[in-house]
Amino acid sequence: MYKLLSKINSPNDLKKLKTDELAALADEVRAYLMETVPKTGGHLASNLGCVELSIALHYCFDSPTDKIIWDVGHQAYTHKLLTGRRDVFHTQRCYKGISGFPKRCESIHDAFGVGHSSTSISAGLGMAVASSLANGSNRVISVIGDGSLTGGMAFEALNQAGHLRKNLIVVLNDNEMSISKNVGALSSFISRKMTGSYYRSLKKEMEELITGIPAIGSNILHFAKKAENSLKGFLTPGTLFEALGFEYVGPIAGHELEDMVAVLENVKKIEGPILLHVMTKKGKGYPPAEETPDKFHGIAPVKPAGAAASKPAPPSYTQVFGDTMVKLAASDPKILAITAAMPDGTGLSGFGNKYPERFFDVGIAEQHALTFAAGLATEGFRPVAAIYSTFTQRAYDQVFHDICLQKLPVTLALDRAGLVGDDGPTHHGAFDISYLRHLPELTVMAPKDENELQHMLKTAVYSGRPVALRYPRGAGYGVAMDQELKELEIGKGELIAEGDDLTLVAIGSTVYPALEAAKMLKEKGISAAVVNARFVKPLDSELILAQAKKTGCIVTVEENALQGGFGSAVLEAISDAGLTSVRVKRIGIPDSFIEHGSQAQLRSDLGIDAAGITATCEQFLSSQSMQMPQLARVK
Amino acid sequence: MYKLLSKINSPNDLKKLKTDELAALADEVRAYLMETVPKTGGHLASNLGCVELSIALHYCFDSPTDKIIWDVGHQAYTHKLLTGRRDVFHTQRCYKGISGFPKRCESIHDAFGVGHSSTSISAGLGMAVASSLANGSNRVISVIGDGSLTGGMAFEALNQAGHLRKNLIVVLNDNEMSISKNVGALSSFISRKMTGSYYRSLKKEMEELITGIPAIGSNILHFAKKAENSLKGFLTPGTLFEALGFEYVGPIAGHELEDMVAVLENVKKIEGPILLHVMTKKGKGYPPAEETPDKFHGIAPVKPAGAAASKPAPPSYTQVFGDTMVKLAASDPKILAITAAMPDGTGLSGFGNKYPERFFDVGIAEQHALTFAAGLATEGFRPVAAIYSTFTQRAYDQVFHDICLQKLPVTLALDRAGLVGDDGPTHHGAFDISYLRHLPELTVMAPKDENELQHMLKTAVYSGRPVALRYPRGAGYGVAMDQELKELEIGKGELIAEGDDLTLVAIGSTVYPALEAAKMLKEKGISAAVVNARFVKPLDSELILAQAKKTGCIVTVEENALQGGFGSAVLEAISDAGLTSVRVKRIGIPDSFIEHGSQAQLRSDLGIDAAGITATCEQFLSSQSMQMPQLARVK
Repeated sequence: MYKLLSKINSPNDLKKLKTDELAALADEVRAYLMETVPKTGGHLASNLGCVELSIALHYCFDSPTDKIIWDVGHQAYTHKLLTGRRDVFHTQRCYKGISGFPKRCESIHDAFGVGHSSTSISAGLGMAVASSLANGSNRVISVIGDGSLTGGMAFEALNQAGHLRKNLIVVLNDNEMSISKNVGALSSFISRKMTGSYYRSLKKEMEELITGIPAIGSNILHFAKKAENSLKGFLTPGTLFEALGFEYVGPIAGHELEDMVAVLENVKKIEGPILLHVMTKKGKGYPPAEETPDKFHGIAPVKPAGAAASKPAPPSYTQVFGDTMVKLAASDPKILAITAAMPDGTGLSGFGNKYPERFFDVGIAEQHALTFAAGLATEGFRPVAAIYSTFTQRAYDQVFHDICLQKLPVTLALDRAGLVGDDGPTHHGAFDISYLRHLPELTVMAPKDENELQHMLKTAVYSGRPVALRYPRGAGYGVAMDQELKELEIGKGELIAEGDDLTLVAIGSTVYPALEAAKMLKEKGISAAVVNARFVKPLDSELILAQAKKTGCIVTVEENALQGGFGSAVLEAISDAGLTSVRVKRIGIPDSFIEHGSQAQLRSDLGIDAAGITATCEQFLSSQSMQMPQLARVK
Repeated sequence: MYKLLSKINSPNDLKKLKTDELAALADEVRAYLMETVPKTGGHLASNLGCVELSIALHYCFDSPTDKIIWDVGHQAYTHKLLTGRRDVFHTQRCYKGISGFPKRCESIHDAFGVGHSSTSISAGLGMAVASSLANGSNRVISVIGDGSLTGGMAFEALNQAGHLRKNLIVVLNDNEMSISKNVGALSSFISRKMTGSYYRSLKKEMEELITGIPAIGSNILHFAKKAENSLKGFLTPGTLFEALGFEYVGPIAGHELEDMVAVLENVKKIEGPILLHVMTKKGKGYPPAEETPDKFHGIAPVKPAGAAASKPAPPSYTQVFGDTMVKLAASDPKILAITAAMPDGTGLSGFGNKYPERFFDVGIAEQHALTFAAGLATEGFRPVAAIYSTFTQRAYDQVFHDICLQKLPVTLALDRAGLVGDDGPTHHGAFDISYLRHLPELTVMAPKDENELQHMLKTAVYSGRPVALRYPRGAGYGVAMDQELKELEIGKGELIAEGDDLTLVAIGSTVYPALEAAKMLKEKGISAAVVNARFVKPLDSELILAQAKKTGCIVTVEENALQGGFGSAVLEAISDAGLTSVRVKRIGIPDSFIEHGSQAQLRSDLGIDAAGITATCEQFLSSQSMQMPQLARVK
């Protein structure tokens, strides 16, 4: 079935094919993707869109000597198939399988690891400069989508690349669509060429101009100015890149392999920075994905036929967040919603449909998103910026400089906080508690379930201060949802189970597992209290210290890095209170990057689920405290 | 002497002047700046460059109804003088005086606080959208320099502003110079208009074109294409901004007040996003500053005449860093240096002069700087990126995603870590330990003095791993400098004073104050050991735990936020080791933003100097530990 693909174990094998065989290979790759991706889940539409581009790049360039760098990396499946990973491709995004993204430790052909957006030109420029310094003759190709180009660092990199004039090929993979419909002036500018009326209008304008040409001589400048103004209306995408010092080539049709190979062979010969503009179609070759590519951006694994119909899953945190936003906005015109190119992913599509004038998709531009929100907040609005925890890392300085320092009431809704599962280390929201809790003026909270999420969102929006609200990826618990939203007292946790032997102090997604652990411990004769901390900052020190005094033993549980995380905040509170003799054990994400796998699997591996918490508590209680003799210190 | 200026206590007073009086006012303002700024120190050249622009903006617009937002903010002195702060202006940057930057809590005319670069368009767009939602008719003006425009978030904001089409006036204050000479393709593009040959060339090209005009008809497209290609060579700055959906006006002469007022009055009437391009001269009116504006970017206070000649100050950490880079590079061609528009500020100018091909000024583009460094590191180079601690916040995600996750050997030289003094809360490097130490694979170190800095830099560069090396603003201690650079053992601190009653565990700039405190404590009969921790990560737990066991009492000292900081890491280590009964006191920056003032003053206020450490230790030792009865926990 995969006559050509089955023979390709490296880019060298690909080069043995004749150019006119490549289209057949593309068909096979596409069929292979259609067969395998639905089984594991993953990014389908973007990968179907760049089958030919991937083949052409590996056909014309020599990886790994030449460096091919994928931006975001969720479009690199064909690249993986062509670089020796065909036979393990069915394990992609699976526990201990290959990654869904390029990864340097996975293959010498993965020149740069990725997962976040807009990094490829910077990395590629580094490699191009390195090649130049080493007098190398290898080429560097950064492949970037039109969506990723809205990220500011891509522009920073273009700016330096145009200035340095090293050999760097930037391939703009333009599908007029990043994850959902692209936004921004740049996008409409780049796509302007596509309007059928382009050449017709140009012709008309030029005719009018020429009819009115003045005598050559003193009026020439006037004419030139007029011509220039006229042409300004017909700027091509090339204009922009040429302004930044790039040689512009394109646009070329991204599904015509022979043409593309011919162009790439020419491009190889050009010195200096080149921008090659390739038009592709997201979902190409699979009509449902072509029509609604956003629905096929990331797909979940298809259930095997005959699998027992499961009861409907509880709503996801994302969905509850989105629904609550709509509910709150109904009675408060000051509430605004902001997304960075993720209206679906953050659950804000419904809000956007209902309140289009109060909904802002800024594109892949997290930095701008938060300072824009800060600007809105200065004028009395209540902006809520919903960004995944991992992507908010891009805007850490804006949280500090524009929001907290000015005490502006912006709510950061950090979706996908904690372990995200299949997307792996680039996407885990493993650090937000650690990178946020040291910022003065910021309130940091996390709900134990989806019902608490809706109350916390209201609490955040009406707190009048900067708030970060973190919640996990995936379904809630199916708990009853209060109809009336209420504001929680800021800085107050709740004791949700009494106990004498130890206190589990849990935050967010770990509260239910901690409760479950308390039950399991009870069966083993251990009486564990459980605190739902609710707030990382301000921490409910009063409650936690009281429990520390009562039980003498605290076990903190969080789905965040242990370094500087929630447990670390509890240690600080206990230390600051001068409470010695309290034993503390912290459960959370250890000091290493966590690979991909299902959330359940990863939580189990790290001991952040009920069984793990139970085992840790048992072990901790049975271990001897290393008591130090208390020296007489008072002089 | 200040006949006009003395009457202006608010923008309303300014509006009472006739347009032809404004130039005289500008002269007075310039004289006032020349008189006052050298006394307090501060940014001189940038402020001299936008006296007229500030006057014109306040003359034509109605602050605070209209919002004037300054990017970076170090050019807002005239704005401060015109908005009621003339009589307190001599206190600027002084302890408890007014800030050197716009600050919302200081004046209703400071629409948005600032200190970092490239935020003004985002904030302004937020305000413009807010105005539109509230059906307001006020105008929003974001003033941004050409240097700040290289920051990616400015581009993110332009992209959305062009798309949303709200009323927003972006004033490009173009002095072809940000802090030092501007870099990047954008900069040379924007300044291209300035070449005298521009119109001459354009005229020649157009003549040639017109001579060759074909018959109107079928060849029109060919002509149009040729005309377009020809004009591409004459792209004006407007092209770029028009491509992004802005109406472009300019360039206009930024020191001609009457002209500028006329243009602004017209600009006020235009709907939608407008970019007004204003040409100014940094240092305008003060010949030395005009000639070498980078020398007059930030100036130190001038010593009063007759002040005793002090002995020459020891070299600054910055200078030692720069010198060591040159020394290391001499024997290793793989060492590269990167700065984000701060070649002087980071001490890298010497390196750049000596090794221009190995020196990269990426512009104000910290995100790109670090991913560019990561790209260089993949190819076997040893890049060192020197960026102030506070500005590295901009690239937190790149440290995670591009450097640590891929274990790439990039050295981050974090200058100005800790309290920076007069620049205040936007510039203190108060958080880097907290925002970095939770990142897996990263080594975080800080030297006790300038001699240790040079060894640490060598250690970092040859560690083969990601390293953050933080060091403070200001002079070293004048210690003897070893001629031979040596590599320190990673993760090993040193016990530099023995003691029995407590152990001071200090990091970086607090080691010498801790040593001094130990001496003062000795006089009070308290025997304090002192540990120079050297590494925040990996922490020398062995040494610290041994001292904890020996003295039972640990006092950590750091010039970083207490939340999640160095002391927090020590608490984690002690807790993880199961050492109860050890009392820990953490000294550092508390959970609030620290205002401006001299470093010595601020350290004294916060108790991070020798006297403060001494007092805290005394108090801590004399306080009773709140002992909890140790419950029998083993079941």
